[in-house]
Amino acid sequence: MSADPRSRLQRRRDTEHRLIHDVDLWVASASPEGAPYLVPLSFYWDGEALLVATPPETPTARNMAATRAVRLGLGETRDVSIIDAEVEAIDNDELPRERGDRFAAHTGFDPRTLSPPYRWFRVTPRRIQAWRQVDELPERDLMRDGRWLA
Amino acid sequence: MSADPRSRLQRRRDTEHRLIHDVDLWVASASPEGAPYLVPLSFYWDGEALLVATPPETPTARNMAATRAVRLGLGETRDVSIIDAEVEAIDNDELPRERGDRFAAHTGFDPRTLSPPYRWFRVTPRRIQAWRQVDELPERDLMRDGRWLA
Repeated sequence: MSADPRSRLQRRRDTEHRLIHDVDLWVASASPEGAPYLVPLSFYWDGEALLVATPPETPTARNMAATRAVRLGLGETRDVSIIDAEVEAIDNDELPRERGDRFAAHTGFDPRTLSPPYRWFRVTPRRIQAWRQVDELPERDLMRDGRWLA
Repeated sequence: MSADPRSRLQRRRDTEHRLIHDVDLWVASASPEGAPYLVPLSFYWDGEALLVATPPETPTARNMAATRAVRLGLGETRDVSIIDAEVEAIDNDELPRERGDRFAAHTGFDPRTLSPPYRWFRVTPRRIQAWRQVDELPERDLMRDGRWLA
């Protein structure tokens, strides 16, 4: 069913294509006590980090504020890109207007217009992996410690 | 883009259809210290619980053994079923042969034949939600405390 395993460089290109063009991804977070959480969120990728927004009282927002860690899933279950990332909360008045505009244009919704207010988070990849089937498990690491390997 | 919001009963039917026919889902788990983890796994649904298998040294297996909790994502990011579930580890010699056979027939792989050995986990839903777009966020709860609401 699958072609030859992709090179690291090809997987990086495929992952960056998704980061640029996809609108939603899966966001896994955890409470400090070890309760898992998972929800799909919209995002905007600026080439270095993802911007996401969610109401501050949601489990995802509370977990991100507390642990500053998420693990993201893009794509399909048999063609995945997985990202371990650091999270930084951004105050609403600290988000440059142009970045909010880009998020709104990309995702089709503008959290700045919503009430109750949303909270912004900047999500910076530290480790990225991508694989389709078992034959792609070797060489699945594309980024370690925030640096692309290919 | 979307039709009218689905009834709870329709969402339950759609979710059960996925549980019966889908092969893979997203498994979010957490370490006891609050580190999130996320990975796609294959599963088999017996009408009451999901059966999954993964090597015992993986983060998912270690997290499930430690916290006995997962949150599962089925479907697409704009047509999701989300399941909070309890986890029970099953010793290999405790899994009835017929159940292992059904898992292998459904998923196309037989963890009993693999080396190093996999570990089995029985994953029982306690809460299930399903929604497509924002208009389906009301009434998204389909199961609470292990009981279907419709």
